[in-house]
Amino acid sequence: MAQTMRAAAKTKAAPGFELIEAPLPRPGPGEVLVKVRVSAICGTDVHIYQWDQWAQNRVQPPLIFGHEFCGDVVELGPGVKGVKEGDFVSVETHFTCGVCRFCRTGRGHICQNVQIVGVDRDGCFAEYVTVPAENLWVWNYAVDPEIAAIQDPYGNAVHTALACDLVGASVLITGVGPIGLAAIAIAKRAGAKQVICSDVSPYRLELAAKLGADMIVNAAIQDLPAEVAKATKGCGVDVLLEMSGHEQAINDGFRSLANGGQAALLGIPSKPVSIDLATALVFKGATVFGINGRKMFETWYQGQALLESGLDLTPLITHRLPLERIGEGFELMKSGQCGKIIIYPGE
Amino acid sequence: MAQTMRAAAKTKAAPGFELIEAPLPRPGPGEVLVKVRVSAICGTDVHIYQWDQWAQNRVQPPLIFGHEFCGDVVELGPGVKGVKEGDFVSVETHFTCGVCRFCRTGRGHICQNVQIVGVDRDGCFAEYVTVPAENLWVWNYAVDPEIAAIQDPYGNAVHTALACDLVGASVLITGVGPIGLAAIAIAKRAGAKQVICSDVSPYRLELAAKLGADMIVNAAIQDLPAEVAKATKGCGVDVLLEMSGHEQAINDGFRSLANGGQAALLGIPSKPVSIDLATALVFKGATVFGINGRKMFETWYQGQALLESGLDLTPLITHRLPLERIGEGFELMKSGQCGKIIIYPGE
Amino acid sequence: MAQTMRAAAKTKAAPGFELIEAPLPRPGPGEVLVKVRVSAICGTDVHIYQWDQWAQNRVQPPLIFGHEFCGDVVELGPGVKGVKEGDFVSVETHFTCGVCRFCRTGRGHICQNVQIVGVDRDGCFAEYVTVPAENLWVWNYAVDPEIAAIQDPYGNAVHTALACDLVGASVLITGVGPIGLAAIAIAKRAGAKQVICSDVSPYRLELAAKLGADMIVNAAIQDLPAEVAKATKGCGVDVLLEMSGHEQAINDGFRSLANGGQAALLGIPSKPVSIDLATALVFKGATVFGINGRKMFETWYQGQALLESGLDLTPLITHRLPLERIGEGFELMKSGQCGKIIIYPGE
Amino acid sequence: MAQTMRAAAKTKAAPGFELIEAPLPRPGPGEVLVKVRVSAICGTDVHIYQWDQWAQNRVQPPLIFGHEFCGDVVELGPGVKGVKEGDFVSVETHFTCGVCRFCRTGRGHICQNVQIVGVDRDGCFAEYVTVPAENLWVWNYAVDPEIAAIQDPYGNAVHTALACDLVGASVLITGVGPIGLAAIAIAKRAGAKQVICSDVSPYRLELAAKLGADMIVNAAIQDLPAEVAKATKGCGVDVLLEMSGHEQAINDGFRSLANGGQAALLGIPSKPVSIDLATALVFKGATVFGINGRKMFETWYQGQALLESGLDLTPLITHRLPLERIGEGFELMKSGQCGKIIIYPGE
Repeated sequence: MAQTMRAAAKTKAAPGFELIEAPLPRPGPGEVLVKVRVSAICGTDVHIYQWDQWAQNRVQPPLIFGHEFCGDVVELGPGVKGVKEGDFVSVETHFTCGVCRFCRTGRGHICQNVQIVGVDRDGCFAEYVTVPAENLWVWNYAVDPEIAAIQDPYGNAVHTALACDLVGASVLITGVGPIGLAAIAIAKRAGAKQVICSDVSPYRLELAAKLGADMIVNAAIQDLPAEVAKATKGCGVDVLLEMSGHEQAINDGFRSLANGGQAALLGIPSKPVSIDLATALVFKGATVFGINGRKMFETWYQGQALLESGLDLTPLITHRLPLERIGEGFELMKSGQCGKIIIYPGE
Repeated sequence: MAQTMRAAAKTKAAPGFELIEAPLPRPGPGEVLVKVRVSAICGTDVHIYQWDQWAQNRVQPPLIFGHEFCGDVVELGPGVKGVKEGDFVSVETHFTCGVCRFCRTGRGHICQNVQIVGVDRDGCFAEYVTVPAENLWVWNYAVDPEIAAIQDPYGNAVHTALACDLVGASVLITGVGPIGLAAIAIAKRAGAKQVICSDVSPYRLELAAKLGADMIVNAAIQDLPAEVAKATKGCGVDVLLEMSGHEQAINDGFRSLANGGQAALLGIPSKPVSIDLATALVFKGATVFGINGRKMFETWYQGQALLESGLDLTPLITHRLPLERIGEGFELMKSGQCGKIIIYPGE
Repeated sequence: MAQTMRAAAKTKAAPGFELIEAPLPRPGPGEVLVKVRVSAICGTDVHIYQWDQWAQNRVQPPLIFGHEFCGDVVELGPGVKGVKEGDFVSVETHFTCGVCRFCRTGRGHICQNVQIVGVDRDGCFAEYVTVPAENLWVWNYAVDPEIAAIQDPYGNAVHTALACDLVGASVLITGVGPIGLAAIAIAKRAGAKQVICSDVSPYRLELAAKLGADMIVNAAIQDLPAEVAKATKGCGVDVLLEMSGHEQAINDGFRSLANGGQAALLGIPSKPVSIDLATALVFKGATVFGINGRKMFETWYQGQALLESGLDLTPLITHRLPLERIGEGFELMKSGQCGKIIIYPGE
Repeated sequence: MAQTMRAAAKTKAAPGFELIEAPLPRPGPGEVLVKVRVSAICGTDVHIYQWDQWAQNRVQPPLIFGHEFCGDVVELGPGVKGVKEGDFVSVETHFTCGVCRFCRTGRGHICQNVQIVGVDRDGCFAEYVTVPAENLWVWNYAVDPEIAAIQDPYGNAVHTALACDLVGASVLITGVGPIGLAAIAIAKRAGAKQVICSDVSPYRLELAAKLGADMIVNAAIQDLPAEVAKATKGCGVDVLLEMSGHEQAINDGFRSLANGGQAALLGIPSKPVSIDLATALVFKGATVFGINGRKMFETWYQGQALLESGLDLTPLITHRLPLERIGEGFELMKSGQCGKIIIYPGE
């Protein structure tokens, strides 16, 4: 192994990034060194790239960013168990403390001391990265590495969708970025009767149709609750999967929800939103689930089982770039004219 | 039986009410005639009395109002089963259609064609009232009639509190009107470790202490999330029971909620409220239940079981008036200087 | 309408049945008269035909038997709501009392005073039958009448399968009579990763393969737990759907269940069975659901939604006979060389 | 610290035990050394003492046995986090592998590679014992050390009881050894309406009454289902907590269960039991939970919360002995004339 590696890093507290030659990281106790095979760009990476308010508050340069990836275990730190050199792995990106009451009750996804790889410590836009062994998901069958690279957003979709009762349900997904797109395939596979999708991007709505949406609604020009009412004989949907974080979508989503319905909220509004709680939630007897990360590792087991039984995520992936051209990927993400963008670390 | 009866009625579309001599009602098919023993004033009755915006939209005079009551079955209409003359009964006030998909799946509390006695048809501020037999709760033990009269709000409290996991839980109740007060006793009886209550009325906070609250917070002068943090070693509460419908209380309640917490919302905001969904709900992985009415009749079975095992609601009742003086009761309700006000129909 | 009709009846307390000319029944209060379009033979009908111990204890001749059917509403009794003449309907065969605590809490499927049509009162092996209006399921789309006729066993399968978490699950179905066969299609549609079926009838195992089973095990000649272990990499199944009622199948099913697994038991053993509770259930931390009938009417909504989204039950149906030849159907059932046998009342 | 310690050990594969002077154990990586303050005798210890079939198959002498205890952390092995020297701790006795799919999904209580302290490795009938740091429960308030010593059986009771819906429920506990006794207090505290207990030991039934049982049934001389029917107006109990492992109690328990009831089974039958599944479980639509160990660490959080809110376990403890006289404790356990027996390691 060489002693340095190529990496995309946030080297200073300002917009942009740099391609650098970084020292090869070494695995500490309980950690492993992973050689990155494939990584992918997340919306969070674009926030870091653009250096928005959130990024300024959270990220401390210098930092190699990126957190969606798969790779091969090439070295074990002391005390590692349950994994071996040569294992092909994906990585749960939330590194948990293991000792808070959430970690101790099987709810690490809401750990109160969580660290995120590529945000709070060096990430995967590099040739190598170190991670705690307990965060590895070892693949025991020949998964497509590009699919292995996007388990973080796919897991978000699995966690969100499976929080609700989908069998025979009418489902509305508001916001069809990569996570919303994955949720379409999951909901269909899990027995939903009908999946309706809304977004304001015609590009993404077209992808939604490809992933199996039964109906797409362009919320920029159509009245979502009215369209949902038409599609459900006036009943409304049984399940709302909110993936946009936009006030209008959230309110229209709740308006579209039937009495007794379930809503799972994954989208992150950037500021408080005004909601008509009485009609959206209280009178309806609705149930709302806030969704964070992925259940460790129930979500992973469920996600792999769905993949093994034929769920196809490949239509999500629209672009592939080498690490050297990752900057083009960030710009593409800003344009919205893409699904998931895959990054290859080697040349 | 006389052919007329004394009643408090909304005789015209304007504030106030009239004491009238009304014709004795007759039970239709599937209905029974109930001789009212004890009734009680609900906040809804005050809305009708004051003739506010909601009342103007919903209520069509002339109407005998009032919906919290108990009484004796004195006559059966055709086709009644499961009840007999002489039964002492309370009444589920939501009259359901029986044929919508919610009614047909055991979820009559969110029936889409619900009628409420005393709001949509003649109610209980009278000597007699007719109700569908299927809405009766027949008491099979010697319950205190004043307690039997307040099963509607008590059932709201049972439904709200038992939506959440209470055993060993820290519980925050925001808003301690009669329903919030009842929820204190229920949460304690159901194994809550600690019940914290907030309100802006010192009168009601004092009642809360009497009902068993472990800590009371006057939200008008204290910082609720800070007080909750102190009382829970920084953990926040596991359960929020929102009974106020006030924006500030809702937001402070969510701020006080621990990761993974549960919130049951019964309070009805009069207009949309602004909520920081990201931190209130999504990142926390919280679950929120909208609560409407009472589960038919699961809530009633649970409520009676709690009463039979010693739950004491009598501290909720602060005033008793004859029907002739019900106007004083409405004014007392407006002042906030009361718990539950009991009305006796006879002299 | 003629004043008599053709019917297959148990006319005396002895094996066999008679084709009779019976008086046309009239709908009582809350009932409707249904003209039978299609009916089907259930195993229960064979018990009555054979006049076994169970039948002798339960059935009181004379009785028109048969309970699986669909038809057209031709007359409404007094007080009927939610249905009209001309509606095409299936029928929930459990007629409930409406007043016991199970009926009053949305759990009519375990009503303690249940009556079954075709067992406790005249049934559907006839041209006409009366049923309570509240037991009707009105089809609002052009369902295949043969499928509408088998909603009772299909509903058993829906109720059993959906009691368990199926998404991504490995599922074992022990016993693939018509209900087990339907459960295959349901489990696959609801996201099961793998469905393994066992039976001792090669005829039925072949049908199982046709319905989509991933693996079939002939328990007469193969070791079920060993085959399951092979198929699940030693993990065992996550879900057991027990449809046979046979001691060996029950024990082999539990042996095949993974730790933390779920078992739904629908099969009815004819006598007590010996079970190694410690290893089958306690140490595993397994959960077991006893299943009776269909949830009213949640199971029906779920079942219809699955049908509307493409679930295909037609491979279950293997024979069609006119009412005159129903005796051949009973004999065929005894042979086990059939799936579901459809009966047409007209000639 | 001395280099040897006093311990009760199984030194050879035969009935009995020896008091020995053993070398002081040292904590390995991730482990701590605990100085035992108080320990207690479990039925399992009696099996080891008597050297019955189970013990012969499972235990490999030499072994210091005992697994119920509390103590003080006196030394940390390498890599320990979340605990420090001087912490007063109880110990989760199931040491899990951390890498199987149950451990990885928050279900360590059904870990497929579990080791039990005092059974599979040296235990607590000694002055010192080593345990993994992750198995510690650090007390953050001044708990009674005798109560801290019996958290293993208390946790069994918490896990079993809270598997069921207890609020307002009628509960039957079959078998009131120390776990069943604890379950009485838990069920009452969690809102049960009525707790009925059965056993064949008058000594233990008397303790049950002391712990708050509303009714006790001596199953040796009374007909349990008949007594339950009387006490529940013919309804049967909503919840069965089976703590005996005896065939008769299991069957009588199920016979006493209402339709739709829940049964949690903790008792371990020593051989297969014959059950009338059809009436016990299937027709009733009952749900059965197999219970193993304690949920890590949800059960511990719940248990501590109940203790902090006033649940009193002290009536369970009937005898106290120094380690030197532990043999008397084993004999007392065999006689059944005791509740929990506490052992003090020092002189």
